[in-house]
Amino acid sequence: MKYLITGHGGFVGSYLIDYIIQQESDAEIIGLDIAARKMKADYFTEYIVDLLDADKLNSVLKKVKPDYIMHLASFSSVAYSWEYPLESFQNNTNIFLNLLDGICRYCPECKLLSIGSSEEYGAVSEDDIPLKETMIPRPLSPYAVARVAQENMSRVYSRGFGLNIVCTRSFNHIGCGQLDKFVISSLAKRFAMFNAGQCSEIVTGDTSVIRDFLDVRDVVRAYFLLLKSDGGNSEIYNICSGFGTSIQNIIDLLCKITNTMPSFRVDSKLLRPVENRIVTGSYEKINKLCGWKPEITLEDSITSIVEWWQKRI
Amino acid sequence: MKYLITGHGGFVGSYLIDYIIQQESDAEIIGLDIAARKMKADYFTEYIVDLLDADKLNSVLKKVKPDYIMHLASFSSVAYSWEYPLESFQNNTNIFLNLLDGICRYCPECKLLSIGSSEEYGAVSEDDIPLKETMIPRPLSPYAVARVAQENMSRVYSRGFGLNIVCTRSFNHIGCGQLDKFVISSLAKRFAMFNAGQCSEIVTGDTSVIRDFLDVRDVVRAYFLLLKSDGGNSEIYNICSGFGTSIQNIIDLLCKITNTMPSFRVDSKLLRPVENRIVTGSYEKINKLCGWKPEITLEDSITSIVEWWQKRI
Repeated sequence: MKYLITGHGGFVGSYLIDYIIQQESDAEIIGLDIAARKMKADYFTEYIVDLLDADKLNSVLKKVKPDYIMHLASFSSVAYSWEYPLESFQNNTNIFLNLLDGICRYCPECKLLSIGSSEEYGAVSEDDIPLKETMIPRPLSPYAVARVAQENMSRVYSRGFGLNIVCTRSFNHIGCGQLDKFVISSLAKRFAMFNAGQCSEIVTGDTSVIRDFLDVRDVVRAYFLLLKSDGGNSEIYNICSGFGTSIQNIIDLLCKITNTMPSFRVDSKLLRPVENRIVTGSYEKINKLCGWKPEITLEDSITSIVEWWQKRI
Repeated sequence: MKYLITGHGGFVGSYLIDYIIQQESDAEIIGLDIAARKMKADYFTEYIVDLLDADKLNSVLKKVKPDYIMHLASFSSVAYSWEYPLESFQNNTNIFLNLLDGICRYCPECKLLSIGSSEEYGAVSEDDIPLKETMIPRPLSPYAVARVAQENMSRVYSRGFGLNIVCTRSFNHIGCGQLDKFVISSLAKRFAMFNAGQCSEIVTGDTSVIRDFLDVRDVVRAYFLLLKSDGGNSEIYNICSGFGTSIQNIIDLLCKITNTMPSFRVDSKLLRPVENRIVTGSYEKINKLCGWKPEITLEDSITSIVEWWQKRI
């Protein structure tokens, strides 16, 4: 089978490639990214493509004719979307529309995995927790509006042009190799630095916020299962742990795992206004479809992340 | 007060201008359209602007600094959106994003009326009738996806940038001067032609479909009241009659009004697959906000439309 992954060079992409090959040793994997990642393997071919360039994208789809497409590429920063709302919205919707149009033309039989975000839920009340796919999305950032449009456009192309699309609303991912602008990666890095004597205290923001964290290895397994399942027709599935963890819980776990007790300082600059105190999802729908549930505990995830940083400090 | 109307040259625009001046004789009305309409009046100024041209739009907003903006302009054909999904979606979202961005820069205090469509509801079941604003939109055309994105973007700019926006989901409008590609205008024209001996039969499509038709004069009154009410913060209001009418009902009314009984022929080419047999809305929310309800009966509307065509046949 031929798997085409857009944005394969990102955090999730490398885990996804590994997982596919582990499951299907004769898989052929095609990566599309805006910059070269220079990954070398028999089963892997890389194309450097800006997905806003429809002609170049089309030429690849025409040549490759993939069986599956996993669309990971996006301008995924919520903060960037506030700074450049037009560009962020247009880029994310335009790359998706280019992809849909190219699929209609050159590989209408393929199955597309469209990645969305828990950000789509937007303003939620605590009564809505855990969030289910049947809730009305009330997106609160230009990034999240584009993600909702992507889902809606998936429905239109699925019903109107017969494309086979499955959509996710993916909650917070964590794992080794994630950039340290993400909260768990950042905290683990600071603990590793503290242990190495490179800093004397750990600076935090609001530690009472509760989020739903899922190991990236569980995420890519869910993505693969969704592609192989019957869940098409633009159906939407939460990808989440189903479990709420506060930042304070994470800090406590890091103290336990590293067997240290740093001193902490709250930086008021990191205390941004938070729309939702608690965001967790329900994974009941994907579980019913294909039996998926999270397998890696939060403690195991965080242990591997802090060890990853310890090797790099 | 200064009222800026985008797309003032369309069907709704001329009614809106008349209504505003009737209510506020000292109003100043500024029309923005892609082509000259050459309407002359003391209270009226016209600018020829393609809303995709952000610089030109900005220069008008900077100069005019309107108190109210009524955004009627759109690429509003569902059929066109199927033929050119990318262009239709991009154009509608881009003109709206340009407008929001311009408002932030040059007239952040103004109140914006964002026009949406009952098409946003998409696939509905008969249990959902009459449609309420609390339903999850499941848009089924690229046009409708763009309209949902417009609503979501209104929430983002209202909460994130403090803009004052009120949104509608407007159901089928009818009235004199509407193009004959719309069903009631088309039927009324054919009855007028039959009466004038210019055709021997009336061709129809599926006459069992039930829709919610509202006179354009009731529509523009609702738009004006929404602007003057407290209903901002990106709240959404159905603009509808609350009443379902089948195409067959319309034909029966036309027979009665014109006192004729033409022969009918069903054209299979006009029998397109219809996603929803019945679409009607509830106007309870706008009624609670500002007391608006429809005032013009369907019979009065259709009488005026058929008379309008009789003068032109």
